Amino acid sequence: MSLLITGSIALDSVKTPVEEHHDLLGGSASYASVAASFFTPVNLVGIVGSDFPKQYLDLYQKHHINLDGLQVVEGKTFRWSGEYEWDLNKRRTLSVALNVFETFQPKLPARYSKTPYVFLANIAPTLQLHVLSQMDRPKFVVADTMDLWIEIAREALQKLMKKIDCLVLNEGEARELIKETSLIKAGRALLKMGPKYVVIKKGEHGCLLFGNDIFFSAPAYPLEDIHDPTGAGDCFAGAFTGYLAKTGRIDHDALRKAVIYGSVIASYNVESFSLRRLQTLTQKDIADRYDVFRQMSHFELG
Amino acid sequence: MSLLITGSIALDSVKTPVEEHHDLLGGSASYASVAASFFTPVNLVGIVGSDFPKQYLDLYQKHHINLDGLQVVEGKTFRWSGEYEWDLNKRRTLSVALNVFETFQPKLPARYSKTPYVFLANIAPTLQLHVLSQMDRPKFVVADTMDLWIEIAREALQKLMKKIDCLVLNEGEARELIKETSLIKAGRALLKMGPKYVVIKKGEHGCLLFGNDIFFSAPAYPLEDIHDPTGAGDCFAGAFTGYLAKTGRIDHDALRKAVIYGSVIASYNVESFSLRRLQTLTQKDIADRYDVFRQMSHFELG
Repeated sequence: MSLLITGSIALDSVKTPVEEHHDLLGGSASYASVAASFFTPVNLVGIVGSDFPKQYLDLYQKHHINLDGLQVVEGKTFRWSGEYEWDLNKRRTLSVALNVFETFQPKLPARYSKTPYVFLANIAPTLQLHVLSQMDRPKFVVADTMDLWIEIAREALQKLMKKIDCLVLNEGEARELIKETSLIKAGRALLKMGPKYVVIKKGEHGCLLFGNDIFFSAPAYPLEDIHDPTGAGDCFAGAFTGYLAKTGRIDHDALRKAVIYGSVIASYNVESFSLRRLQTLTQKDIADRYDVFRQMSHFELG
Repeated sequence: MSLLITGSIALDSVKTPVEEHHDLLGGSASYASVAASFFTPVNLVGIVGSDFPKQYLDLYQKHHINLDGLQVVEGKTFRWSGEYEWDLNKRRTLSVALNVFETFQPKLPARYSKTPYVFLANIAPTLQLHVLSQMDRPKFVVADTMDLWIEIAREALQKLMKKIDCLVLNEGEARELIKETSLIKAGRALLKMGPKYVVIKKGEHGCLLFGNDIFFSAPAYPLEDIHDPTGAGDCFAGAFTGYLAKTGRIDHDALRKAVIYGSVIASYNVESFSLRRLQTLTQKDIADRYDVFRQMSHFELG
């Protein structure tokens, strides 16, 4: 089944202690859409400026991402620049220029409104709500968020949480939203705020899936060298939702596998800058790494 | 097969934001021996003073721990006191009194020297080496350590690492020993220093087992309430080695299960102060929680 994704589309400048790149394809919706495209057709909802490179439109199309919901307007595309320390868990935002994103009013093409699966990638919760209000009873809605919205848009975020099936967020955000150091308590408290499922991403420690009748702990892939962590969380959530859309099932088996497929795609994405690694990724690569995840976490009955 | 355990035996005073207890049975060898006793007979090597309560000797004996290697000498038992913050990952040592431990020269009873499995719980690496030198070709030797020895006894620790089969340490210690933020790189670098296997304990994030031909990632049990984290790592390593001794096999299947059994016992131990929870623990409790670990980390083939 198809998947609608909305979120930011950006031109990123990313600096690590070893490399620096400019005008990379970035933004939560870009990462999530390309990640999801390995599993299911994607309908993209977003905005770019007239400066948006044609090669990136080609990249989306190569991944069979439908662009009817992409607004191209006069002006500059949203730009973000950031710098990582040697410990790549530590990131500093150097600059943000919203540009055309400042006046973004997502408007869904009529044929998008019946898309059964939805991933609301990280943008302001009011925009996420606005997209959701245009959907016709979707089967399963996943949303991501970030610390900024927890700080400045908590009310809209709480409203959103009552309308979605699954919230995906990282451990720092979970702790901040619930004001609780224990991730187990935070995960269970988040469930009480609305969503049926909560996924807490823990970076190098893997991730946790919480539900009323499921708890699943997935490991992280043991990468020695990470080149660019940007977008890993978006890739995780895009592939997670993409796999669920592909199976058409929301059961424990599908949810567990979706968490692993999300981890697989995210682990590949950090091997290179922007979406470069995913450009050459094959279904065999995905299946191979899924097997490695299984080997590294499987143990027999006691 | 039987298991020899050496390490510290202490009387602990432990304070958390909600409770405070004095003269608790503590020390790395105490936790490890009781944890291992659920799987295999234990030969304990250690020292206590003449003030050591008889009830704790009874406790060891109730767990069929052989005390022929326990020296009881005139003077006071080793004492440790510590305090935990609300975030129980944060511990402060308030006082340490070595007492009889200061002059401890482990001397193995003749019948101990052929014990096939050995766990050198946390004490000075020179003492760990001294115990090992009295052993007659043990089948499998596991050692634990702590930040203090990395700082003040690195040379002895490096010598020890060449003589053991498996090193168990926590993530902070692994990073400190290797001077590397990536745990994956640290784990692999530690293998090059001697041991065939390395287990890095990550507390609430579970643990990682490294070997030349194995990598295994185990989750942590999702406890909402931890009452006293003291000794969790010692319980893990004691049960880990105890399970290996019980099976008599060192293969991938046994190693994976040993990591899970270690995690099971450690997760029970933190539910109460000192070794109280393990006093009432049954084989059924262990089997039940092992199954929960399997449910929370199992996923089917892709």
